[in-house]
Amino acid sequence: MEMEQMVSASSHAEAGPFTRAWHWLKALPEKLWSKFVSVATKAKKLGQDDPRRIVHSLKVGLAITLVSLFYYFEPLYDGLGVSAMWAVLTVVVVFEFSVGATLGRGVNRGLATLLAGALGFGAHRLASFSGNICEPILLGLFVFLLAAVVTYIRFFPRMKARYDYGLLIFILTFCLISVSGYRDDEVLDMAQKRLSTILIGGATALFVCVFLCPVWAGDDLHNLAAINMEKLGSFLEGFGNEYFKTPSQGQSMEDKEILQGYRSVLNSKTTEESLANFAKWEPRHGRFRYRHPWQQYLRIGSLTRQCAYRIEALNGYLSSELKASQEIRSKIEDPCTKMSKDCSCALKELAQAVKTMTKPSTANCHIANSKIAAKSLKSMLKTGLWQDTDLLEIVPAATVASLLIDIVSSTEEIAESVNELASLANFRSVDDTGVAKGESKLSCSSSIKGPHHIITIHASTQSE
Amino acid sequence: MEMEQMVSASSHAEAGPFTRAWHWLKALPEKLWSKFVSVATKAKKLGQDDPRRIVHSLKVGLAITLVSLFYYFEPLYDGLGVSAMWAVLTVVVVFEFSVGATLGRGVNRGLATLLAGALGFGAHRLASFSGNICEPILLGLFVFLLAAVVTYIRFFPRMKARYDYGLLIFILTFCLISVSGYRDDEVLDMAQKRLSTILIGGATALFVCVFLCPVWAGDDLHNLAAINMEKLGSFLEGFGNEYFKTPSQGQSMEDKEILQGYRSVLNSKTTEESLANFAKWEPRHGRFRYRHPWQQYLRIGSLTRQCAYRIEALNGYLSSELKASQEIRSKIEDPCTKMSKDCSCALKELAQAVKTMTKPSTANCHIANSKIAAKSLKSMLKTGLWQDTDLLEIVPAATVASLLIDIVSSTEEIAESVNELASLANFRSVDDTGVAKGESKLSCSSSIKGPHHIITIHASTQSE
Repeated sequence: MEMEQMVSASSHAEAGPFTRAWHWLKALPEKLWSKFVSVATKAKKLGQDDPRRIVHSLKVGLAITLVSLFYYFEPLYDGLGVSAMWAVLTVVVVFEFSVGATLGRGVNRGLATLLAGALGFGAHRLASFSGNICEPILLGLFVFLLAAVVTYIRFFPRMKARYDYGLLIFILTFCLISVSGYRDDEVLDMAQKRLSTILIGGATALFVCVFLCPVWAGDDLHNLAAINMEKLGSFLEGFGNEYFKTPSQGQSMEDKEILQGYRSVLNSKTTEESLANFAKWEPRHGRFRYRHPWQQYLRIGSLTRQCAYRIEALNGYLSSELKASQEIRSKIEDPCTKMSKDCSCALKELAQAVKTMTKPSTANCHIANSKIAAKSLKSMLKTGLWQDTDLLEIVPAATVASLLIDIVSSTEEIAESVNELASLANFRSVDDTGVAKGESKLSCSSSIKGPHHIITIHASTQSE
Repeated sequence: MEMEQMVSASSHAEAGPFTRAWHWLKALPEKLWSKFVSVATKAKKLGQDDPRRIVHSLKVGLAITLVSLFYYFEPLYDGLGVSAMWAVLTVVVVFEFSVGATLGRGVNRGLATLLAGALGFGAHRLASFSGNICEPILLGLFVFLLAAVVTYIRFFPRMKARYDYGLLIFILTFCLISVSGYRDDEVLDMAQKRLSTILIGGATALFVCVFLCPVWAGDDLHNLAAINMEKLGSFLEGFGNEYFKTPSQGQSMEDKEILQGYRSVLNSKTTEESLANFAKWEPRHGRFRYRHPWQQYLRIGSLTRQCAYRIEALNGYLSSELKASQEIRSKIEDPCTKMSKDCSCALKELAQAVKTMTKPSTANCHIANSKIAAKSLKSMLKTGLWQDTDLLEIVPAATVASLLIDIVSSTEEIAESVNELASLANFRSVDDTGVAKGESKLSCSSSIKGPHHIITIHASTQSE
């Protein structure tokens, strides 16, 4: 497309400005059309990636229309007057994607307005006792002090995480009430109007947000934890085949994409933290009670990232320059493949357990199996199998083995934290429901394409 | 403290409710005081960590006070009336920590208000032609469509990064103008007032933000890139001593803290991206011209993180359980220490080069040296030195060596991207200024506490 344009541009380089302008104009509709098509494609993809985005947009439209029409038919609610626009404003700024975020903003806005209104009224009364000359000075001082102090408080990490918006509204309302109060002495009336419009706006936003296809931040956090573990599992599942394949075996684009899926886990911290903050605002919903242990998801997330960092180091050894020779690789193939498959299986089972909120049943068994494989790898390294080989050639293979052993211990830590979550959140145990058992078994065996080695757990492995 | 409380609580467990209440009341002042002290300590620490936070709070206080008093002495500006509170509102919501963020929000707010005002007026006129019954339906339809479409546009990652606030204000203003327009037919007047108050508020905020101790997001991004490289350098500087020390050598808390400094680099992506977005709004300032290549900092940042992931893997081998035996470690000590010291030196020089905006001069030399060390390590692995040792015992040491080799190539990539930045941003070369040379030399030699090996670069090393 651009190539074509360049060619046509160069062939008309000698033509007059009118000819050039004509050609530019002639190309314009096509350019605009291609721009439109690319934007439309992107918009379609955004909707396909997460259809809740489309629903959210329609919900926002609905809530704003409701409040606007309420404002339009204002005579019905004669008391509100011009401050009714605060209702529209409240809906626009409070309506967020998830229920938790909307609730958080709504509560912040409501409480901050109430508190700051009271304080502003007090400041206004105090200043009005001090005479005509002192009053503006005193008011200015109050506003300056409050704005500076509250702005400083916004830097506290904990306050920033949960009350940032409330602190902003606090400053805003205090200034409006304390200063504007002087003009007309109807401060109380104004405060009451402002509060009632905020309540109307906030209630509309909340109602639409909660009762029409609600999006729960808690659900998202819960699923994100499961998806991230699953992504690591998918990498480890594919790793064995990819690393130990012979050069003749090709690799499909799809395989490559699955292997690279873990990358998004590396930078998941910010998303997880904000989701956890939103989730804390949310009431009991679906499978989650009010004080669900959201903090534990952050712990699981941080251990998952720890594992992802190790996988990132491992991923470097998939590139052909850094691979050990075919011969050496084939020597460690069996235990390494077992380790990565078993870790993959454990991670996928943990992910499934979180998803279905059942206690993980076979993950420990898989981890024990991968430990056995690690042990057999270690004892294999002890044997005289390597006497003739160059140490330099073994190093990359040894590194891969070593990183895999680290990943096994990482997986074990993840499993522990998931178990902790299971007991904190009272996950039901698998024995209770035959269905859950069937599900988790299905997912585990279906996720392994190669032969699945069943190894009986030896008593001595637990001690490792 | 808490322990004490528990003891006192248990000893009074049998006492009556009044006695308990009395003890609770008696303990209250102390509790409040300790709470106050802990908050004050935190506040002090926040200020010490970044004194600009205190200045920012005072600036916000000043700007809001200015606008509030302007509103207070309103008779001077008779035209504004009640909508003058939009000026206060604008200052509160527009004033951000950095100039870029404030400018971005200000421009977003101004432009969005202008555009949405025009569009809202158009919609209002169009609807008013359609008769009394159709008008509210038509207006409702317009509001719904616009709110839904613009909300959807906010999901586009590019729009979200730069224009999120503008899109929000766009919806807000459109609704206020198109719907409120019906009430009083002074829509144009209202729009003009709103715009002028926003201009007054925005101008005040910008003036205070830019002319009183400005905080430039560009500066922060620039320094963050340098600091992150330096943190990795500090880890690598300490790594050699830490890994190869004999068990008898202790480790101070301070050393441990320096070694853990790299951890903050792992999660720096979000901060860097938002700083880059803010920096793009900023005009020419200090050493940065208007179109400074901010995007290149993101590339440097992503390579720095890549290196940090490898360091994270390396860090795991510092714990004593995973360390190779003293004997084996001592064999690879020399080249490994050289590699980590030279990489550390290169990273610190690159950081210094970015800080002082000079072309890095000796970094390539350090990288070449570390490559020589890597080569000598490799050739050492080839010798018969290891014949008698158990392979299993070598594995952890081999992994460390292998990760260090990866870190060398990571450092090389970082150096390349810094060189690219140097040419994109026209860093001055070191020969131009004796001062810059002295500075960078000082930092490099002072940062290395152990003996500094100077190795002449061999021609063959470039080919690696």
